[in-house]
Amino acid sequence: MTARDQHDRMANAIRFLSMDAVEKANSGHPGLPMGAADIATVLFTRFLKFDPRQPHWADRDRFILSAGHGSMLLYSLLYLTGYEDMTIEQIKSFRQLGSKTAGHPEYGHATGIETTTGPLGQGLGNSVGFALGERIMNAAFGNDLVDHHTYVLAGDGCLMEGISQEAIALAGHLKLNKLIVFWDDNNISIDGPVSLADSTDQVARFKASGWNASLIDGHDPEAIAAAIEAAHKSDKPTMIACKTTIGFGAPTRAGTNKAHGSPLGAEEIAGARKALGWDYPPFEVPADILDAWRKAGQAGVKAREAWEGRLAKADAKLRAEFERRMRGELPTGFDATIADYKKKLAADKPKVATRKSSEMALEVINGFVPETIGGSADLTGSNNTKTSQTKNIDASNYGERYVHYGIREHGMAAAINGLTLHGGVIPYGGTFLCFSDYARPSMRLASLMGTRSIFVMTHDSIGLGEDGPTHQPVEHLAALRAIPNHNVFRPADATEAAECWQLALESQKTPSTLALTRQNLSAVRTEFAAENLCGYGAYELAAANGDAAVTIFATGSEVEIALAARDKLQAHGHPTRVVSVPCFELFDKQDAAYRARTIGNAPVKIAIEAGIRQGWDHLIGIDGIFIGMTGFGASGTIEQLYPHFGITADAAAKAAEARLHK
Amino acid sequence: MTARDQHDRMANAIRFLSMDAVEKANSGHPGLPMGAADIATVLFTRFLKFDPRQPHWADRDRFILSAGHGSMLLYSLLYLTGYEDMTIEQIKSFRQLGSKTAGHPEYGHATGIETTTGPLGQGLGNSVGFALGERIMNAAFGNDLVDHHTYVLAGDGCLMEGISQEAIALAGHLKLNKLIVFWDDNNISIDGPVSLADSTDQVARFKASGWNASLIDGHDPEAIAAAIEAAHKSDKPTMIACKTTIGFGAPTRAGTNKAHGSPLGAEEIAGARKALGWDYPPFEVPADILDAWRKAGQAGVKAREAWEGRLAKADAKLRAEFERRMRGELPTGFDATIADYKKKLAADKPKVATRKSSEMALEVINGFVPETIGGSADLTGSNNTKTSQTKNIDASNYGERYVHYGIREHGMAAAINGLTLHGGVIPYGGTFLCFSDYARPSMRLASLMGTRSIFVMTHDSIGLGEDGPTHQPVEHLAALRAIPNHNVFRPADATEAAECWQLALESQKTPSTLALTRQNLSAVRTEFAAENLCGYGAYELAAANGDAAVTIFATGSEVEIALAARDKLQAHGHPTRVVSVPCFELFDKQDAAYRARTIGNAPVKIAIEAGIRQGWDHLIGIDGIFIGMTGFGASGTIEQLYPHFGITADAAAKAAEARLHK
Repeated sequence: MTARDQHDRMANAIRFLSMDAVEKANSGHPGLPMGAADIATVLFTRFLKFDPRQPHWADRDRFILSAGHGSMLLYSLLYLTGYEDMTIEQIKSFRQLGSKTAGHPEYGHATGIETTTGPLGQGLGNSVGFALGERIMNAAFGNDLVDHHTYVLAGDGCLMEGISQEAIALAGHLKLNKLIVFWDDNNISIDGPVSLADSTDQVARFKASGWNASLIDGHDPEAIAAAIEAAHKSDKPTMIACKTTIGFGAPTRAGTNKAHGSPLGAEEIAGARKALGWDYPPFEVPADILDAWRKAGQAGVKAREAWEGRLAKADAKLRAEFERRMRGELPTGFDATIADYKKKLAADKPKVATRKSSEMALEVINGFVPETIGGSADLTGSNNTKTSQTKNIDASNYGERYVHYGIREHGMAAAINGLTLHGGVIPYGGTFLCFSDYARPSMRLASLMGTRSIFVMTHDSIGLGEDGPTHQPVEHLAALRAIPNHNVFRPADATEAAECWQLALESQKTPSTLALTRQNLSAVRTEFAAENLCGYGAYELAAANGDAAVTIFATGSEVEIALAARDKLQAHGHPTRVVSVPCFELFDKQDAAYRARTIGNAPVKIAIEAGIRQGWDHLIGIDGIFIGMTGFGASGTIEQLYPHFGITADAAAKAAEARLHK
Repeated sequence: MTARDQHDRMANAIRFLSMDAVEKANSGHPGLPMGAADIATVLFTRFLKFDPRQPHWADRDRFILSAGHGSMLLYSLLYLTGYEDMTIEQIKSFRQLGSKTAGHPEYGHATGIETTTGPLGQGLGNSVGFALGERIMNAAFGNDLVDHHTYVLAGDGCLMEGISQEAIALAGHLKLNKLIVFWDDNNISIDGPVSLADSTDQVARFKASGWNASLIDGHDPEAIAAAIEAAHKSDKPTMIACKTTIGFGAPTRAGTNKAHGSPLGAEEIAGARKALGWDYPPFEVPADILDAWRKAGQAGVKAREAWEGRLAKADAKLRAEFERRMRGELPTGFDATIADYKKKLAADKPKVATRKSSEMALEVINGFVPETIGGSADLTGSNNTKTSQTKNIDASNYGERYVHYGIREHGMAAAINGLTLHGGVIPYGGTFLCFSDYARPSMRLASLMGTRSIFVMTHDSIGLGEDGPTHQPVEHLAALRAIPNHNVFRPADATEAAECWQLALESQKTPSTLALTRQNLSAVRTEFAAENLCGYGAYELAAANGDAAVTIFATGSEVEIALAARDKLQAHGHPTRVVSVPCFELFDKQDAAYRARTIGNAPVKIAIEAGIRQGWDHLIGIDGIFIGMTGFGASGTIEQLYPHFGITADAAAKAAEARLHK
């Protein structure tokens, strides 16, 4: 058998596993795995540095299937190269409930899945974070420990999505030359030929964004290998446009959108078996080909062992630090550091915006935790995301800790997910809360994957003032709270900000969003508490003088309004307690007794939040009083806006009294 | 005074009005108006076809300030050219509550504001819709009635946002050669020099996307004029990269990010007055310059009068149709057409997916309403957005009615907003509900502006099956309902789908999202009702046999589950009613008596929706039973998933009975 024959048969193994699995599931996307099988075969047999038996090896190359609908490509590769949890039974259970072989690759379901993909463009967006993470860790730990590539397979959809431009512009700017993107250039999207909707010269586009880019025959193994070799020598990221035939081998559907997203059918598959000379029953890979694949899967063992040798010989302190960071553990003493800082705050009682409180907390955190990587989507001075420790990362220096992501909220969030998935770093990035909408698809994936992605969202209400309703979040707290497994923090002062940051850093399986004010707020936590009270999600901040007639729940900037309303009500003889609610999600996780005690039995319940009511009923009941927004904001000064929208201590106190007197 | 002196002084009028207004407001962005004043002056005095006294003239050129933070540029132009509602008092009230001169340009606040901008990239995204709308209307009504340009001023932020790539790729593909974008290429963004975050060759990038593009001196009036003239001759859209100095004229801050987003201060402004030779007090424009501007504002009167002459002479039927479409009125008899169709449905009782129901409704609507323009973000066959009347629009034929938007949900939504703002067309576009996240920033702006944008969102729950949690919306209904002024429809069968479509088309000031199933649903509305019951938002679909012990609220695909649960409960002797809730927002607008009657007094209230609970408490109370999702979905068949997540008639009936027996 010639080398080319061997290659073809190895690639065909991917093709038939994919066809057969989609056929058995009666659902799925055979076209991409069939079209991209040659690219994947060359990459996995000749270049990719990995060891299926040590899938979490820190210095492995990462392979990201951005075109996640082609999941059978990845599952086939994992099975063929010998990942232990990717059995042929899993392949046969493709898309069935409880299998590791979900419709799209789900991070955490099977080893070898580096990130969850399917929503188009996200894997490409992640890859910038993976590749940047590699460079950051390389700068910290050297070539001996960190020196790997990030490979991406992207489809037409990935490149049409806007996030792709944010990703490639950022990668080009940062000269992430160990990032290599294969574009499966098959001219077909779901609706038909790509020419229905696109005429972009993608090679020229990538070049305009600072990439090395070329067009090759995606079915020619030597052309693919040569392109990868050239990419390894480039000082820029590389895009290899691989001209392929979708559904390669399918006699009537190849090259058409009929190969894209549905089973080919028995007849078409039989035709493909004939055309490609594959005389084996479904799910059977001939022994010589499976052997060849398994050998390819073991080709990385030497490199991994050599790396382990280098790690063993490394300076003990360096090694321990590397291993700590890759485990995702915070440095010992983190709790005490935060506690010390909280003591200082209790003494100082600073009256600052929570965006400033956040910066102050970060100044402490970044001084103690060397792996935090800050950044902002061009709002550094507004988001207060930069501290004395975080200098700019750029193409000439990856050893620093701050990323100017540009005006690219979506690309930033996807890169943050990639950074945290890479490991060794804890990324956070800022924008205005209103523009969480731009980043939302990536924020959702952070939640679905359970990554420690941290989003710093300032200017969190009408309190931002004159920029007006386009910039004033109204529905965003509710909309973010709606995402499962996403902690939305809204601290009320510097102490709560410190506590929320602590929780965000300690939250390894749930991403966090911190909603922070532009405007100054008084300290509401005036006494030191060793415990992280924000960890309860909601807690009694001020007790009532006597049996509570009124409980006021509030978050963030509205907590001081709640306290002022309490003063007014108590002055009028109505005992009133105030509950601060920095995080709905954590409160919902408390036991029933704590929740009942915290909500309490006061006859009048009020919530104050400068957003919409949605989500508040579960605390105050449907008869509870809500002081907040019912529609969009307006352009005006903060002094005008809060009274204009009726979000004042007076309004709250009056509403409570009206209810008490009813 | 030379022509150049005259130009400079006219441009300086913009600069000083902007500086002075920002200074008085003590808030705002002086840098862009100062930097782009030359571009705007050339455009408005030599090219733009408009008449400030007839600001809604259908054939006017559109000017879109995509870099909306530079709002004082637009307000200055509106004042200088003589828009009646843009008085000097409004300029002096910049950013004050209630003024027409909000922080960012707000559509509807002042005439001459074609679209709300501020969230970056949105105006550029809208412009594709404006330019396409022009071509569509031109194809329908000819050069005599429709022949105008769309001009855009975009900043670095607009071009860094991913939506820009979606917009420019679509515009390039469609060869929208009457779209002309000025890029205010000032090298500065908020964080500092653009080089902190970007190295893109924008001219090359636009060329790669099929644009005519060139780089000019943005302070040279003749270069600007020549570039516009060249653009007018191009068969492609044109991007003119205008190299400018942000804060042009400010002695120490020009060319730096200190000119971008805050008042310059008295000293700097005094320095600018000196540097630019502007010896007038704040807000004063010398009479000769104001005269020159006002004359420029009247230059379009002749063209407008000529156009009116052509309109008057046009075929009466054509003219009436043109005017009807530009008024946004539906053709007479639309109600009766829908009623006839509903009669047919009541007889046929089709068991189809609501995405198919939607297509069936559209087949009727598109046959009767010639101005609907369909489309999808590459999911035509899945979204069922194409009907027999809608053939593909392409660069060689704008006379059709279907847009293949490509895999560009965000660009599609922004273009839809632009199409509806242009007028004369009613656009709708489809994607999967899960990917409403990608389109959300534009969907929010549709709500803020109050446009008749219609979003068709199929695959609206775990019911889509095997594609798994990346594609299964869980929080999206809640998240969309959270947006103010946005009707989220979730019809339960073909009749409700027809009613929801009717409501969406009739809703001129509120955008609509239709959430539609992939899976087939039984007809639940089996008798003809002349009235549009979905217009109530919620209504009793099935009464209880006797005094209701249980009320079940449900939407969309879960209504048939609710009816099955009702059967079970009634069989067990528990009178049960079912309320269908196709639209929360419309229900909330009903009077208190209707709402109370519809919610009813049954001791047990249940809601069934294959999404999260958030938002449902206001119907069922915090003690109500919710049958739905509490986290992300899973990959599996629909037959597996509904039972797996406990969303079944059995589960609902059992939960109700457990409560009744308590």
